[in-house]
Amino acid sequence: MSSYSYLALGEEIDREAYVVAKYRVTTDLPMEKAAEAIAAEQSTGTWTGISTLKDDVFDRYAGKVTSIDGDMVTLAFPVEDFSGRYGGVPQILSVIAGNLFGLGSVKGVRLEDVFFPDSFLRQYKGPKFGDEGMRNMLSRPEKPLVGTIVKPKVGLSPKDTAEYIYEAGIGGLTNGKDDETLVDQTFCPIEERTKAVAEALDRVDEEGGHMMHAINISSNANDIVQLAEDVQSWGARELMVDVLTSGFGALQAVAEDPRIKVPVHVHRTMHAAITKDPYNGIAMCVFSKLVRMCGGDALHIGTLGVGKMEGDVAGGRMSLEACRDTNVPFKTVMPVCSGGMYPGIVPAVMKVTGNDVQIQAGGGVAGHPEGVRGGAMAMCQAADAAFEGIALDEYAKTHKELREALERWGSK
Amino acid sequence: MSSYSYLALGEEIDREAYVVAKYRVTTDLPMEKAAEAIAAEQSTGTWTGISTLKDDVFDRYAGKVTSIDGDMVTLAFPVEDFSGRYGGVPQILSVIAGNLFGLGSVKGVRLEDVFFPDSFLRQYKGPKFGDEGMRNMLSRPEKPLVGTIVKPKVGLSPKDTAEYIYEAGIGGLTNGKDDETLVDQTFCPIEERTKAVAEALDRVDEEGGHMMHAINISSNANDIVQLAEDVQSWGARELMVDVLTSGFGALQAVAEDPRIKVPVHVHRTMHAAITKDPYNGIAMCVFSKLVRMCGGDALHIGTLGVGKMEGDVAGGRMSLEACRDTNVPFKTVMPVCSGGMYPGIVPAVMKVTGNDVQIQAGGGVAGHPEGVRGGAMAMCQAADAAFEGIALDEYAKTHKELREALERWGSK
Repeated sequence: MSSYSYLALGEEIDREAYVVAKYRVTTDLPMEKAAEAIAAEQSTGTWTGISTLKDDVFDRYAGKVTSIDGDMVTLAFPVEDFSGRYGGVPQILSVIAGNLFGLGSVKGVRLEDVFFPDSFLRQYKGPKFGDEGMRNMLSRPEKPLVGTIVKPKVGLSPKDTAEYIYEAGIGGLTNGKDDETLVDQTFCPIEERTKAVAEALDRVDEEGGHMMHAINISSNANDIVQLAEDVQSWGARELMVDVLTSGFGALQAVAEDPRIKVPVHVHRTMHAAITKDPYNGIAMCVFSKLVRMCGGDALHIGTLGVGKMEGDVAGGRMSLEACRDTNVPFKTVMPVCSGGMYPGIVPAVMKVTGNDVQIQAGGGVAGHPEGVRGGAMAMCQAADAAFEGIALDEYAKTHKELREALERWGSK
Repeated sequence: MSSYSYLALGEEIDREAYVVAKYRVTTDLPMEKAAEAIAAEQSTGTWTGISTLKDDVFDRYAGKVTSIDGDMVTLAFPVEDFSGRYGGVPQILSVIAGNLFGLGSVKGVRLEDVFFPDSFLRQYKGPKFGDEGMRNMLSRPEKPLVGTIVKPKVGLSPKDTAEYIYEAGIGGLTNGKDDETLVDQTFCPIEERTKAVAEALDRVDEEGGHMMHAINISSNANDIVQLAEDVQSWGARELMVDVLTSGFGALQAVAEDPRIKVPVHVHRTMHAAITKDPYNGIAMCVFSKLVRMCGGDALHIGTLGVGKMEGDVAGGRMSLEACRDTNVPFKTVMPVCSGGMYPGIVPAVMKVTGNDVQIQAGGGVAGHPEGVRGGAMAMCQAADAAFEGIALDEYAKTHKELREALERWGSK
């Protein structure tokens, strides 16, 4: 069996016939050995030669090491390894991001990126709405969307939540969302919350605003589609799914359900347990690509190194690119910059993202000296200033709420 | 807002009123500050004081720092934070293992363990069968279960797969399973594979064996229950779910489905992307507890530091304990030791696990010089020797297949 070699370095491969994955590998072994061990573990191999592996099976289904560049190893897995009716993203992950992290032959391995053939991608539907669809629904063609996360994360009643959203909408925000830990607790049941928020949004409409709010339906995947339909019927204008805890299948099932006519906002709680280590785990941009395939309309990508969340700046930019890449057959995704956001850092974030972004603050709205409405106004003023290319300090001279925010939190 | 303190060090808490989580925290801040930041982020707080957090909400729903011991921080989250009809394990994870990993105020944080109140656990059903149920089905009351993973992982036809299982069963194995990357590929469709394997198992029965084989149904959670029922109707005696890629909700939905009358074997591919770093991420024993709550009957726990997979020995032992803990209101789980297993290391593993374990080899069966049947015999002989307390070298004198295995791979 030593005749089986997973090394095909420099060999031209048919990009339509393989899923290509890039890994950063840390090992004491020669890199070729480590790369071969990963290719084997993730396709036709195991740790020892076996009698049941035949040449034709190896030739057709084995992963190949197509390049090694320093500590970066590129593997190509035949699309046949991903074929069939069942499996979905769980099966994709089992190949490109499965057992390899535990291999004794590597000290660390990080899946940095993945590329799917076009024919493969076409099995997925992508976003129903995407960034443009959301902008159309909000009558906001150019300026960034500006949103809030209702704070505190837990503890508010449906009425308090709705009041928060009303104040935020009157303050000018375009988007709201439940925080990720709030689903259906007894102090804020999802039906009552959804109905109360829907009424608040109607009031915002009546007073000239345009706003949507994502209700967090993150739950077990067997009931999430029904919950999504119920929540929509109670008046939700947007749904939120936490993709890593609920599963990609849950996101896909909701997003592809033809009865769902509202965008899906995708949160990524728990991601840093997987993405944080630069030498082991999975880069966010891989998850971002899968989210887009599965139909997320908006996706959290962090604050690109600026806010309270640890910033993998390069990783954030790759996620941004994954949302926007026009070489894939899907609508583009609205990137959501969130996590320790406040008015003073809005221009720094928009410098990276441009205007096609949803900027979102929780504490940076609710912590404003003038309350939620003042905080919402300050965030919108900061986004307006950046959109118009005016320095915040300058803009603050004529915008009191922004001035108060800068006094409280400063700027970058 | 500075009046809100999440520190309740040394305070006695009512263990029935809180979910308690233990974290290893690496930080440049004073540990109290870092602990408070985590408690805040995961419950009622955010990075800045906010006008919308009221005293009564803080008192009822805030997480508390109940102890700090070196780098170990214990937090208690009120059970109300997890209440309601919807949410399930995704919502549990969003609180105990959500955004905290990305907090800028910590360099690393690892969720090491979690404890749920008894009343909380009783919302879950646990395994239908557990280790005892599986033993009863296999008429194997005392000896360890001995299993194989069909190799190569991908590429065999249904007929080849069935032949592998027949040879393994005739060789004496009690368990087989699909490898984690095989679901429903065109070269081995799940319906044909399940039916072919069922026929092979019937033949094993007729010749005096007892064996089950777990068909891998890991797929999107919206179709996994129907797939489970179909696969059972095609003759499957056991199902396999990869819990981290398919989601805990998928496992729970399959395991709790009253129409499913076969055990669920739980695989954990991708886990080392999350569990490997000793200073960031989530310890396997947390996932093990959740798997048991969700109804897994058998669960991979690695080889406790012995096989090809990187061994977190202490973590493996904690997972073993999570499978067996009799202080929770669930059936006990069959621990599965798998990953680079071969006959020569069976006694070393059983020294840790005792007899109540499923020992499982893929390459360590299929790579035997006499093929799958010989490999199965060698694995059973190794388990028999360990069960009877006889040294492998001694037992090998009268057992040719074991002798050949020891010659090929040695022993530990």
